[in-house]
Amino acid sequence: MKRVDEVAKRICKIDPVIIQQAQNKLDNLTKPLGSLGRLEEMAKQICGITNNLEPSLKNKVIFTLAADHGVTDEGVSPYPKEVTAQMVYNFINGGAGINVLAAHVGARVVVADVGVCVDLKPDQKLIVNKIGYGTKNMAKGPAMTRDEALKSICAGIEIFENEYSAGGGKGIDIVGTGEMGIGNTTAASAITACFTKRSIEEITGRGAGLDDKGLSNKIAIIKKSLSVNNPDPLDAIDVLSKVGGFEIGGLAGIILAAAANRVPVVIDGFISGAAALIAYHIEPKVKEYMIAAHCSVESGHKFILEHIGLKPLLDLNLRLGEGTGGALAIGLADAAIKILTQMATFKSANVSERDK
Amino acid sequence: MKRVDEVAKRICKIDPVIIQQAQNKLDNLTKPLGSLGRLEEMAKQICGITNNLEPSLKNKVIFTLAADHGVTDEGVSPYPKEVTAQMVYNFINGGAGINVLAAHVGARVVVADVGVCVDLKPDQKLIVNKIGYGTKNMAKGPAMTRDEALKSICAGIEIFENEYSAGGGKGIDIVGTGEMGIGNTTAASAITACFTKRSIEEITGRGAGLDDKGLSNKIAIIKKSLSVNNPDPLDAIDVLSKVGGFEIGGLAGIILAAAANRVPVVIDGFISGAAALIAYHIEPKVKEYMIAAHCSVESGHKFILEHIGLKPLLDLNLRLGEGTGGALAIGLADAAIKILTQMATFKSANVSERDK
Repeated sequence: MKRVDEVAKRICKIDPVIIQQAQNKLDNLTKPLGSLGRLEEMAKQICGITNNLEPSLKNKVIFTLAADHGVTDEGVSPYPKEVTAQMVYNFINGGAGINVLAAHVGARVVVADVGVCVDLKPDQKLIVNKIGYGTKNMAKGPAMTRDEALKSICAGIEIFENEYSAGGGKGIDIVGTGEMGIGNTTAASAITACFTKRSIEEITGRGAGLDDKGLSNKIAIIKKSLSVNNPDPLDAIDVLSKVGGFEIGGLAGIILAAAANRVPVVIDGFISGAAALIAYHIEPKVKEYMIAAHCSVESGHKFILEHIGLKPLLDLNLRLGEGTGGALAIGLADAAIKILTQMATFKSANVSERDK
Repeated sequence: MKRVDEVAKRICKIDPVIIQQAQNKLDNLTKPLGSLGRLEEMAKQICGITNNLEPSLKNKVIFTLAADHGVTDEGVSPYPKEVTAQMVYNFINGGAGINVLAAHVGARVVVADVGVCVDLKPDQKLIVNKIGYGTKNMAKGPAMTRDEALKSICAGIEIFENEYSAGGGKGIDIVGTGEMGIGNTTAASAITACFTKRSIEEITGRGAGLDDKGLSNKIAIIKKSLSVNNPDPLDAIDVLSKVGGFEIGGLAGIILAAAANRVPVVIDGFISGAAALIAYHIEPKVKEYMIAAHCSVESGHKFILEHIGLKPLLDLNLRLGEGTGGALAIGLADAAIKILTQMATFKSANVSERDK
């Protein structure tokens, strides 16, 4: 807990003065006041996060963490568990959706195994920081021990900080969160239910494509998992250990570490959102560092965004995960900072301002 | 009319077979079926438009057409009329929002004067194809003659086709529409009212930032313009000539020419939407070639989208125009085509498919 606490304590409130300075800067650019809407809001937020009126978003990193889930024994996914490991190889070989979209926005993908249930072939493109070989089946008891939950968060912190300090400098200007783990919408739904108090029926979606029967079964399994484990919503580590996942804990660690280092963190979809819930319930100040990439098709996601108080940038019916929505939002963040730093002012361009 | 008719007649229906082939291709990629939502829909649409399962979006062009509006005499904008010309220089010098966002997505901006009320300094980066020195004040009579309306559409067709055939080949793979013209939300509102039958109050927004008094005046002026001119919604050229603008006619021409040449055309915001209405009422088949970039803050825009039957990709509270929302959407279109053409298949990546 000490390491997690230490990182959480480094997260500080954003200075309203820099936000106002960014606003003034935006208001001098050759466009009607506020006419670039959410791009302007995001530019201000990133100035605040980085405490810099000329932030650079050169180093864009998407962390895609993979782990398995014991609850797949209950038939909660239409895909076999082996797909988690197979997709990790796909990430390493550059063939997945996240590879294509990250490259599109100029981000690099950092892939980590924090709990896949098999040993993967060593590869220099793969970080291995396994907390275990998949979680246990949460329908029968806790998914992991409290110690493992803390270790998963610390793994995320370490993965972030290693990448951040790589090359001796600030190796990350903006972060996206991503994940892979067959069964992980089930864990994310259970976490969402704990914190938002919404009904399991409202929160639970079809994941990678369940039919009606599969969806009913998934709802029943989530209910059973919550009743067997009785996680305490006042204790985020308890929730993570009882109904979470190693990749979800890892992403919570990445989110906290990003905020502690004043790096904007783009939260992808539903599973990343569950990780954001854990991070937020460890340290609420982390919210100011978060950018919600999109609103997922997965029905629980909107309740997560509402609970934390985030407004998604995109609504494109995405439900792939991996960090794909985050990649698209990083492209928009980049656009927002270019607007702030590259547009002409009324004065420099000799454009008349509005009638007063 | 002959030239406009000739182009409109070349617009053909999209073949459903190619859409199905694109669907099959997407369904073999390593992701749950349909999980990239609107990116997948857009990829299919672009395959259909280009009649190609491996379309390239290398050559991205945003046409930003500028013209003035006589109705500014009625105080419908908080900015002085001179800003139209000043902003054209800003476009040429690369300092405007559209320059920054177009560069961000790898698009080039083609700037054309189709009716600015002064003669601009010649510049090789500026196309001059003036229909007139601003429209007439539509609150007192038609904005332009029927002949000028047709000429403005033909100017757009010519601007598109020159760029398309530049360098001896297919110089455009995707088009964005953009505009600049102080007073042009007033014209766009009047056009929208003609075709959608919504009340002027519902349709009229604050443009570049009118206060309550300015908004009431703008509404009164639009009502007066419609009553003085009585445009016939069954005759798109009549609507354009009576309450339109030269840049709006020019963009209608660009939209028709893009569709005739099987090039996807990304419609920016409210004024581009008014141009899309004109194009759609000349030839409804053009709709299949349109991608609606975003939903503008300008209140009439959603009625345009509804009327044509388009669903916007983005909702970022934008209201700048110039083609800025279109630029962001071109970035998403590019992402969609990269997904289609660069992702691994289940077979190539050795990933198990879902349980049947």
